[in-house]
Formats: sequence, structure tokens, C-alpha cells
Amino acid sequence: MTKKKVVLAYSGGLDTSVAVQWLTEQGYAVVACCLDVGEGKDLDFIQQKALQVGAIESYVIDAKAEFAKDYALLALQARTLYEEKYPLISALSRPLIAKKLVEVAHKENAVAVAHGCTGKGNDQVRFEVGIKALDPTLEVIAPVREWSWSREEEIAYAKEHNIPVPIVLDSPYSIDQNLWGRSNECGILEDPWAAPPEDAYGLTSSIEEAPDQADIVEITFKQGVPVSLDGKAFELDQLILHLNELAGKHGVGRIDHVENRLVGIKSREVYECPGAMTLIKAHKELEDITLVKETAHFKPIVSQKLSELIYNGLWFSPLRSALEAFIKDTQQVVNGTVRVKLFKGHAIVEGRKSDNSLYDEKLATYTSDDEFDQAAAVGFIKLWGLPTEVHAAVNKQLVSTKA
Amino acid sequence: MTKKKVVLAYSGGLDTSVAVQWLTEQGYAVVACCLDVGEGKDLDFIQQKALQVGAIESYVIDAKAEFAKDYALLALQARTLYEEKYPLISALSRPLIAKKLVEVAHKENAVAVAHGCTGKGNDQVRFEVGIKALDPTLEVIAPVREWSWSREEEIAYAKEHNIPVPIVLDSPYSIDQNLWGRSNECGILEDPWAAPPEDAYGLTSSIEEAPDQADIVEITFKQGVPVSLDGKAFELDQLILHLNELAGKHGVGRIDHVENRLVGIKSREVYECPGAMTLIKAHKELEDITLVKETAHFKPIVSQKLSELIYNGLWFSPLRSALEAFIKDTQQVVNGTVRVKLFKGHAIVEGRKSDNSLYDEKLATYTSDDEFDQAAAVGFIKLWGLPTEVHAAVNKQLVSTKA
Amino acid sequence: MTKKKVVLAYSGGLDTSVAVQWLTEQGYAVVACCLDVGEGKDLDFIQQKALQVGAIESYVIDAKAEFAKDYALLALQARTLYEEKYPLISALSRPLIAKKLVEVAHKENAVAVAHGCTGKGNDQVRFEVGIKALDPTLEVIAPVREWSWSREEEIAYAKEHNIPVPIVLDSPYSIDQNLWGRSNECGILEDPWAAPPEDAYGLTSSIEEAPDQADIVEITFKQGVPVSLDGKAFELDQLILHLNELAGKHGVGRIDHVENRLVGIKSREVYECPGAMTLIKAHKELEDITLVKETAHFKPIVSQKLSELIYNGLWFSPLRSALEAFIKDTQQVVNGTVRVKLFKGHAIVEGRKSDNSLYDEKLATYTSDDEFDQAAAVGFIKLWGLPTEVHAAVNKQLVSTKA
Amino acid sequence: MTKKKVVLAYSGGLDTSVAVQWLTEQGYAVVACCLDVGEGKDLDFIQQKALQVGAIESYVIDAKAEFAKDYALLALQARTLYEEKYPLISALSRPLIAKKLVEVAHKENAVAVAHGCTGKGNDQVRFEVGIKALDPTLEVIAPVREWSWSREEEIAYAKEHNIPVPIVLDSPYSIDQNLWGRSNECGILEDPWAAPPEDAYGLTSSIEEAPDQADIVEITFKQGVPVSLDGKAFELDQLILHLNELAGKHGVGRIDHVENRLVGIKSREVYECPGAMTLIKAHKELEDITLVKETAHFKPIVSQKLSELIYNGLWFSPLRSALEAFIKDTQQVVNGTVRVKLFKGHAIVEGRKSDNSLYDEKLATYTSDDEFDQAAAVGFIKLWGLPTEVHAAVNKQLVSTKA
Repeated sequence: MTKKKVVLAYSGGLDTSVAVQWLTEQGYAVVACCLDVGEGKDLDFIQQKALQVGAIESYVIDAKAEFAKDYALLALQARTLYEEKYPLISALSRPLIAKKLVEVAHKENAVAVAHGCTGKGNDQVRFEVGIKALDPTLEVIAPVREWSWSREEEIAYAKEHNIPVPIVLDSPYSIDQNLWGRSNECGILEDPWAAPPEDAYGLTSSIEEAPDQADIVEITFKQGVPVSLDGKAFELDQLILHLNELAGKHGVGRIDHVENRLVGIKSREVYECPGAMTLIKAHKELEDITLVKETAHFKPIVSQKLSELIYNGLWFSPLRSALEAFIKDTQQVVNGTVRVKLFKGHAIVEGRKSDNSLYDEKLATYTSDDEFDQAAAVGFIKLWGLPTEVHAAVNKQLVSTKA
Repeated sequence: MTKKKVVLAYSGGLDTSVAVQWLTEQGYAVVACCLDVGEGKDLDFIQQKALQVGAIESYVIDAKAEFAKDYALLALQARTLYEEKYPLISALSRPLIAKKLVEVAHKENAVAVAHGCTGKGNDQVRFEVGIKALDPTLEVIAPVREWSWSREEEIAYAKEHNIPVPIVLDSPYSIDQNLWGRSNECGILEDPWAAPPEDAYGLTSSIEEAPDQADIVEITFKQGVPVSLDGKAFELDQLILHLNELAGKHGVGRIDHVENRLVGIKSREVYECPGAMTLIKAHKELEDITLVKETAHFKPIVSQKLSELIYNGLWFSPLRSALEAFIKDTQQVVNGTVRVKLFKGHAIVEGRKSDNSLYDEKLATYTSDDEFDQAAAVGFIKLWGLPTEVHAAVNKQLVSTKA
Repeated sequence: MTKKKVVLAYSGGLDTSVAVQWLTEQGYAVVACCLDVGEGKDLDFIQQKALQVGAIESYVIDAKAEFAKDYALLALQARTLYEEKYPLISALSRPLIAKKLVEVAHKENAVAVAHGCTGKGNDQVRFEVGIKALDPTLEVIAPVREWSWSREEEIAYAKEHNIPVPIVLDSPYSIDQNLWGRSNECGILEDPWAAPPEDAYGLTSSIEEAPDQADIVEITFKQGVPVSLDGKAFELDQLILHLNELAGKHGVGRIDHVENRLVGIKSREVYECPGAMTLIKAHKELEDITLVKETAHFKPIVSQKLSELIYNGLWFSPLRSALEAFIKDTQQVVNGTVRVKLFKGHAIVEGRKSDNSLYDEKLATYTSDDEFDQAAAVGFIKLWGLPTEVHAAVNKQLVSTKA
Repeated sequence: MTKKKVVLAYSGGLDTSVAVQWLTEQGYAVVACCLDVGEGKDLDFIQQKALQVGAIESYVIDAKAEFAKDYALLALQARTLYEEKYPLISALSRPLIAKKLVEVAHKENAVAVAHGCTGKGNDQVRFEVGIKALDPTLEVIAPVREWSWSREEEIAYAKEHNIPVPIVLDSPYSIDQNLWGRSNECGILEDPWAAPPEDAYGLTSSIEEAPDQADIVEITFKQGVPVSLDGKAFELDQLILHLNELAGKHGVGRIDHVENRLVGIKSREVYECPGAMTLIKAHKELEDITLVKETAHFKPIVSQKLSELIYNGLWFSPLRSALEAFIKDTQQVVNGTVRVKLFKGHAIVEGRKSDNSLYDEKLATYTSDDEFDQAAAVGFIKLWGLPTEVHAAVNKQLVSTKA
């Protein structure tokens, strides 16, 4: 009789290597599956290592282009910043990884999918809800959450089973990375009064070390998609990677955030998103000249909801699809070029232009070119202020002393 | 028979000096009224000048403390940023000026109030709605909007009436300033592709000129009110002014914004808010550790509405009072200290601490001190993802290929 | 030389008949244009009358199907109720009329478009913003707003120019009607303490007069579109008209509303929407079983914004298009049948069923068929309540005595 | 050694009577605690029965006035309707019961609190989060969720321990009731296609049985609090009870709702809220004439959030307090009288009047009394439509064919 198969999200690290063995002991044949979503992994090494630690099959998948086009792009166009700060790095990759795991599970006739998350983070939710949405019949296993070993017990188990234990085991940090950025938690970062030490960062220079010479880059968007840098066309994943390097050199995109996890606790995270934050800033400025006021004022409500939905692991909810339809509809006019100065940790938009620009110098100017009908303002103000005026007249005694 | 009195918001500049004369010609006795809301005016000079150009009475009022306490503080606690960028500098001072004008009008038995706004900005709305809310019986006059002279005609009129015309008349810019910041428009700024030149700024150093040595400041809040810097107590207006200087030196708080005016056009504005932006950043971080998730996620909705309301001249609307009641209620727990590094245009929060902190290292940690019940996550995820799972099971064919 | 042409929105009533003459006197050749959006007009009569009172050309257009499909349907699917009450009757037809007027203007090479609105309602805004959005080069004329005659002066002018004056001129009411309902204002209705008299209603029976026998109707929806009644297929406009009759007989859909007009005043309106309110109720119940919670809870935010946008005359704003994209995306699963009891002014949904139903009796039941995992609730509650619990533990002294 | 005490929320029914015995077997001394929140319980009987089935102490508390004043009133003023339908009946009483249980626990030095909820409803969440918020040190026990017996096993246990088993045990329904209404689920109601049978209702007449003669009642509010009926003053709890009877007689307030529970499933509930729905309708109409537009348009956003918060068991979240501060602030002007016609299932507002009314007949009228400045509309429309017009002019090709 053949063993039941489980597809394991495999990273090459200790936890998931031990999980291969542990799952095998539970009676499963383990199919390892490793995705590259832009963190620059050595995929060949990981593929081999999975087999070496006991997987019967080992997949590696380059998902950078798909991640950029179907996940990061929506985050850019909506400018999703969870709690106004976190650009949803890991929250964006989890649904894609869930999707690929389920695809592999179907191909391999697996009965289960496994991931290496603990029981107190957000990612367990994102994986499990995603997998259940895509195939509710698949069992989901979370070995690390289940075995609940101490670090020492895990290492002992690894040694006993000939699983390589990294020499520098004890990086104090827990890191995740993809095209859209890098997140870091644990260690000294758990003290919110302590400044993050330099070794907590991996994608960006410190402001102190950043060059004294700015770089200027012109980013061109078509329908809300960044398509070229300084006039040179890029595929989206490559464009983001390129900006990660360029803006990272200038220290752009460091974020230090005490955030509210879905599972009810606050945690302190350090993020680096040089490319993402540069694009988000540029995109906002382009929208500022191309969207009408009503759209500009309601879109943040949609974006906040979308941010929470994605953060909370509900990418596959039909609400995501409806919110995305809204966002995509707004992007038709978001065409043009934004000039960004990268300098000392800043991505400063210095100029923006667009054929769809609604900024009309003839209406805005205070020079003699003015075409604005100032007389119209008198009637406008009269009616605009009428409710407040009637309220005040009726409720004289109610107008607070302060007011 | 005595002439009817009008109270004019007097700045000491050309427009309102000409307006004194123009109003006098319309048959009014002009009472000039100048407020200091933190722009560092020479009040004695302005008081004298008003009389010199024809006012029958000249008031000067130091309103800095009132402005800080009743207007800027709400903007800080709500972190009102119109269109996610503009901290409402002028929009905050207009209702206070309106209030003072009406008070003087009552004291002087004036029948009218006048302001120096043109017909295409937001300030005319803020003044007029404010005045009408406080006393609907007062007539409101907008001389500049009414006379619709060209610059040359205005100067000719001034010379004819012995009104001093500044030698350097043609600053290309139109500037307004108070405790909460400085706004600048017109001139080269009307081209949104052009970077603002250095002479557009008055409160901040450029990043290039900013010191190579950071300043670190600890800001302590009590119930959402910043009360001390590095342990030294300050009145709020003085605290803001102090931070304007300190953070301004480091180039903090430059904002370049193409915004949607209430009157239907887009305009490009350059703002400097070193103190305001430093406080806003610090306040956010303190709330991040002291507010529960639900409050943290709904407060931005309230703040956005408040930002629009104030921007749109509806400070005296009863909705402002209700939104303020919400904001104030949230501030009870916003106590603690935030450590901010001012450096190269950044106000970086490096640490935050509070007796009301909800960040619980014992719940958040990944060390052996962990007190979080990881087993609870299993049940949580099951119910959290249930709607998405049932939806997917029922509507299999509907799950998009992308998803 | 040929005269400039103006296209006039012509209703056949006194105001627009006089307007034909008045516009002619202003030097225009008047092209009359009358739309049927479901109010059951005698189009032939109106077409002739326009020519008789001086129009050089007279268009009549049956726009019922287009109105139903492109305007009323969105109102149904979003369930747009302005201020939770008004189903946007006239607000929906105005953009369609504007569109048709512009089409005729282009066909006739007209330079202007005219409408019969006064200066204090919402419709003037809806017409003018619509026309300007579709062709900013067209002049818009509002004769009634311009001439500002008293009723007597208008009648004198009509008689002088041989324009037929209705014998029963003085209906106290001002009425507008289309497929989606009938609105009525003025006369005794201007007293908000007075109950609307029976003669204010035209589409519905009073509850007192409604039959003692209920009608039951099953309404079937496909992707949010009502397609059949009791299994019989209908085109949408015909389905609505049919329901207007059936539900109107039972007194369904009377609405008495003191509303906030865009132009700053409150007005009291009486609406009748038997078909619309029956469909809106049925549609809600079908969504209740087919939408996931997240969608169900966010859609009202989108609908409220859409209601205000349409009410405020901004149908042609790009925000409408984006909101519509959201709404349409949610409707894919809104398939099924709703059984409605029409009785004594009520449209009571008694039953709903759908192949896309997410209501799962096996999860919901308290019988032994229960498949819900009750043990999962323990973990769920623990994490769900954690922020509140931590807040309370930290801020013991802050929990109000009431709480 | 004395036994540990547990305070049990005791209803007098089978589940909680069995729980007394079951908890005793677990080693607890059981203190029974029964609250009257308006369901008309026989408190003496319940108090005795608790002792008879084994409680060592039995509290009965009349909490009607407190429930009305501190819980139902907020629901009225915010008009909280979960998913636009459910007036939060049980969701409102749970936090009060939790509070009283904790008070008794403190008085009795109990170590635990117990409730009779199952594991699939909302009430378990409301109780447990409430108790944990008020005293995180108290253990919470849910006997029914823990023992997971079938109905037959429970009855067998009851008989074995001499616990009285009701003769008509098998009411198919599960009912909860208080001042604010009555909720009913289970049995035939679990089929959402089936109409609720008459025996599912207990507070209201059917429309068929309702009187042919309407009752008219005038409800007077002071600062949003209903204080008198037809001029006769009532305490709030008595006023609601009185209206329950009067409006219930006319069949007002039946609600049939398939709702989204917090725990991830949909359930079908039947509610009756004659008093609540009558007050909610009246309160809306009074606000329609007393609130300014901005407040009227934002308050529903606040109310929706409050509805979800209370429904989801987070009454003791600090967000409730902030939302309540908003609501209370808006109620200052909600003074006046509303005339309601109760007839055939309807509570129809026929008239409303208020000294704070912002409805101004002189501004609204179309008679010669008109004081509205119609000329102001021209300028208003020009600026109001400007963004849409500029957008259309710039993006001609983008205006959809439909638009």
C-alpha cells in the first residue's frame, strides 16, 4: 500500500527540514515545494536539500512574475498599508504559496498540505484559509504548531535524524522576504523602546551610510502599472527588484511598526520596502493629478478594507475580488510619469505629469491667465454653508463656547 | 449720523491695507483686527499701520495659546491629514479668526465683517461659513473678490491713496503661516512637474543643508496632549514652536501636494510642518501601543471625515463636535513617551513606552517566556475562515482562475 | 442666417411650453425632446403639442428599457436609498435625460440645451453637471430659473402667447414619475407635521383600501437581475411596471421623507415605489443567503456613497463607474428565488432559496445533524476577546463604572 | 475545606437547572443568578427553583431600568440594526448580565462564572469576552458546551438527579427575550424557504389578526431619549414595555432574518421588536428634521460599526465608549414630538415637529413665501460639477458609451 502524500511548503531552513522527517514519521510521503517570490533563494540547493532530508519529491517554482503581476500590483494600486504603515509583504505572498501548494497537491494526488508556521502568527491563518478556500477536502497540517518543542528539543531531534543543523543557528531574528519587501521580528526587536540595531536590516542602507549624492529616477505608469524607469521598459518583477536595489542603496523604505495581529496580540516588526515604498509614493502623486476628488476621497476607504482583508488572510474571499474591481476601474486614467529623488532615506516626488492630468494651470493660477469664475464662489459658499448657518440660527444656545 | 462699522481681518499686507481704504469708500468705518496664531508677526507695527492706512480702530490679538489648545490639538489627536498629506494649517486657523472677528464685531457693534480672500481659494469659504455660523446677521464682505482688479490696478489705487506699496512687491509666492505650519502656493509652484525651489521654503532646512548629527528628543504625552520635551514641561503652543525650530533645523516636515480644493479645482501647494509632523508621527506610535485594534482601525475613518470637514470650512458644523467627542474619548489611554530621532528630513520614532501599553512581551515573544496559547489558534482559524471556505465549496466554479 | 438651436427637455406641461416661447424670443430655434422613462405619457400628444407651442422640431423617445437596464438596475443591486429612505427616482432618470438631450443636440447641431428646473431643487444640478460632463461646449439654459416670474406672471405670458393653460392649473403638488417610482412635493406636504392626504398618492392604494387577500409572488434573480415573476420571464422594464401594479394595489412602497437637498435645505417629499421597494426587499434577502459576511458588511458603505453620488448629480463622475464595478462583481452569486407576500402595505419575504446559498442547515442546526465543531469556539473566543481582555487588565481603572 | 464557588447565569429552564447539578458534581458550590431584563419572568419561582435543584444561593435581580437606560437607549439613539435588520436584542443584554454575574462573583468571592450557551452561537462570545474584560482572573465555564450531550442524554441525567423536566419539553424553538424584543430560532425556522408559522411569534399579532382601527401615538423625545407617550411621562423601561404592548397589538416589528453569526455561519432568526422598531422609526424622523446633513450622513457609518461591535461581543471594548461619545454628542438637538400611526404591522410616522427643527418652510417652499436665493444655485452648480466637467474634458475617450 502506498503512503498518503503531503505537500510541504519547504524553505530549506531547520523547521521545515525537521518537518519533512516528522511528517514521514506520521506516515506521510512528503513532497517538498519551494517558491521563489523574489527573496533570491538558491533554488537548486534547496531542491536537493529537501530530497536529502527525506522528501520523496522536491518542487521549486519561480513565481516572481506571477507574484508581481497578481499580488504586488494590487497592493501598489490600492496602496494597501495595514495600519497606515505595513505594505503587506508576507500577507501578499501567502495566498500565492497556498495556491501553488494546492496545485502541486492536485498533481501529486496528495491528501494533505503542510506549512511551517507557529500558532501565534498571522501566516498560519493566511495559509490555512487559503488552502481551505481552494480545496476544502485537503487536510492541513502545521507540524511546528503541533509538536510544540523547545528549540533544544527540535535540535536534538534534528541531530538524531541526521538533519543538518546550521552552525549559526541562533540568528536572533525571524525573517521573511519577497519582491515587495523584507520583514523582521523577534530578538531585541521585541522591546518596543529599543531602536532596531543595524543588523536587523538587510535590504537598505542606514541614512548615515546612504550616499551624499541623490539619484533621480523617472517612473512611468500605464493604467496604474509601473512600466518603465527613466524611459527603459521593465517587466514588473524586474522593475521592483531594480528599485529595491536603487532605493535600498539610499536607505528608502525602513518601517518600524508595533502592529495588531489578527490573533489578538500586538507585535513589533521591522520592515524594509525600498521598491514598494518608492512606487507607492510615486503612484499616489500620479493619482493626485489624475483622479477626481470624489474618487480620491473614497478610494482610501476601499484600500483600508482591502488592507485588512489581505492582512487577515482573506485573499480568497469574494470581497477581495469586488474591492479589486473597484481599484482596477480607477486605474484607467493613472497614466503618466513621476520624477522621484532618492536621497537619505527619502523617495521625494519632485514632479508629476500626465496626459490625463486634471490639474489645470488656467483654473489654478493666480496670474492673469486665470480662467476660473470667481463670481461663482459667492453662490457656492451660500449654499455650501446653509446647513451650518440654519443649524446655528436655530440652535443658538447650542453653539459651544469654544466654537 | 455715525457710519456703519466693518471689522476687517487685517494682515498688514497690501491687499488688506487697500481694503481698509476701499471699505471706507464704500461708506464703512473700518475696525482692523490682526491675530497672531504663531507666525511671529510684529503686532505693534501692524497695529499702527492699520491706523495709518485709515482704520478707525486697530485690534491685535495674541491667539497662539487658544489656537494650540482648541484647534491644533484636535488636528494632532485625530492626525488630520487632508488627502493623506496636508495637515490643515490654514484650515485650522480660519475658524479661530472668524470667531475673533465676530467677537470684535459684537464689541464694536459692527454690522459687517470683511476678509481679504480671493474667489478661488478655500479660505473664503472657511471665513464666511464660520462667520455666518457664529452670527448670521452679520454681513460678510470680500473686497478682493469684489473689486477684481489686476495687480497693476490695485497698485495704482494704493499709490493714489497713499497706501505704502512694498518695494519687493513681487514675491512670486502666496504664503500663510501659523504654529501648525507654513503653506506656500503660486509662482513656479503652479507647474507640478517643477521641483519647488529652495526659496519656496521658510521654516525648514533642505536635507542637503541639514546637520550631519541627529537630535534625539523624547516627547511625553498625557491623554494625547504633548506635555514635555526631554522631560521639560511646555505649554502646548510653546512646545510646538520649540519643535518647529528643532525639527525644522533637520529639514523635517516638507510636503509637496497637488490637492483638491473645495471649489472644484486642483492646486499645487508646498507645506512645511516640522513640529506638526514630528508630533503626528510620535502620536501615531504611542497610539499603536495603547489603543486596541478595533479603535485603531476605526479612528482613521473618523479622522478622514474630520479632515474633510475642517478643510471644507465646516469647523462650526455640529458634526465637528461629535467627531471631536469620539477623538477625545480615545485619548484617555494615550499616555507615555516616544523617542524621536530628527535627522536628514526624518522624524524617526525609535522607541515608545507607556504605562497603558497593550503590547505584552509575554504574549508576543517567541522565547520560552511565551504565555500565548497557541492551541487556541486552531479553533480560531477554523471559524475565522469558515465563510470563505463555505463560499468556495458552494461556488467552486466561481473561484477565479487567478485565485 | 439660421437661428441657433437649443434642445429643450420638454414635458408637455405649462413651464416647458412657456419655455419654448421664451427661448424663441431669446433668439433660439427650439427642438423639443420628450423622454418616456416609465411614467406612461401620451407621447403623440406631447410631440404635437411641442410643435403647436412653437418648437421647430419635436422628438419623443421611449427610453424605458434603457432606463431599467442601465440606471434602475444599479439602484436595485446597490439598494441605493438616500438617507436610508429615498430610492433615487428622479435622481436616476436625470442623467439618462441629459444623455439623450446631448445626443439630440449633436444630431441637430444645437449650441445649447435647456431644462425646466427651478433654482432650488436637485434636478438642475443633475441636468447641468450631466450635460457638462457629456459635452462641456454646450451652453445650458434654465428658463424657469432665469425668468423668475410669479405663477400669475407666467400665466399672463402664456395667455398672451396663445399657450394652452391647463384648466386645473393648481394641482398643489409637483410630481415626477418613472419606472422606479413617483415623487411628490409642495402644497400641504410642506408642513412636516401634517400627514400626507390621500390625493398626494397616485401609484398605490392606502393600507385601508388595500385588499384583504394577500398576493404571493416568486421573484427569480440571475446575477442580481430580476428575470421572472412566478416563473414567467419579463424584460426588466416590464417586470418593474408589472410589480408597480401588483404591489401598488397592496399599498406597498409609500415613503414620507424630510430629506437634505444638495443645495443646503431640507424638503419634505412623498414617494411611492411599489415595484422598487418590493425588488429591493427581495434582493436583500437573496444576498443575505448568497454573500459572505465580509461582502455583506462592506457593500452598504459602497451603496451609501453611490446613493449620495447619484443624488448629488454626479452620475457621470468616474467614481460612479468604480462603485458600479464593485457592485457588479458582487452580483455573480446573487442567483435564486425569493417568495414575497404582498399585503397591507408590506412586501414580506417569506422564503428564499438559491443554488449559491451559503446557509448550511448542517452547520446552523441545533438538531443531531449538527456538523459544526463547537470545540473550535473555545479557541476562537480566546483570541477574539484578547485585545479587550488585555486592555481591561492594563487599564483597570479606566473601565467605566457603567461598563 | 469550603468548596470553590461558581456564579451561574440561571434562567429556570432545563439546561441551566441541569448545569447546577453538573457544576456541583465538578466540585463547585453553585450560586444561581437570574436577571429580569424585561421578559416578564416569575422571579420568585425561579429563585426557589434554583435552590431546589441544588444551588447554595439564589439571586434574582430586576435590571430592567438599567438595561433600558444604559443599553437599549444607545441602541435606539444609534439605531443599531445589525445587517440593516436585527436590533441587537440579546446582544444588548449579554454585557449587562456579564456585569451582574461579575458583581455577584465579587460579592460571593466566587472563582468562576458559568453560562448556559452552546458552542455555536454568539452569546458564548458575548458572555466570555464581557466577563474577561471585567475580571480576567475569573474562570469561565460553559457546561452545555462542555458536556456535549444529546437531548436524550441530558433528560436522562436530569431524571436521574431529580431535576424537573418540563412536560412540553419539545418546544421546537429556542427563545430569548427582553425589553428590546424577542428572538426565536430553531425548528422549522431552520428552513429559510419556509415562512415562519404563527406559533413562532409571541409578542405581536399577525397582520391578519391586527385591529382594523389604527392607534395614533405621539412620542416625545428629549435629547434623543423618549420621555413621554401622548404627553404622559414614562420611565424608559416602562415606556418601551408600554409600546411593546401597543405596537405589538398592531403587529409591528416582526423581522425574519438570515444573518451572519460571528462564529462563521449563517442562521435564520425571527425577531419581534414592536416597541423598539416603533421608537427607531420615530427617532429617525426626528433626526431627519434636527440633524444637519453632514451629521446625518456620517452617523450611519458610526452606527454600523457600533452594531457590529455589540453583535460581536465587544461591548466592553474602548471603541464602544468612543462611538457612544459620538452618538451622545449628536443627541443634544434631538428634541421634539413624532406622531406615529400603528396599523397593520406598520409604525408610520405621519408628522414630526421640534423647536430644533432645521426644516425651514420659508427656504423649502415653492410658494411666494420663498426666501431661498435661487441665483446662488448657478455658482454652486458651476463649482460643484467642475471636477466631473474637467475630467470629462480631459478624458473624452474614457467616458463610457453608457455614460
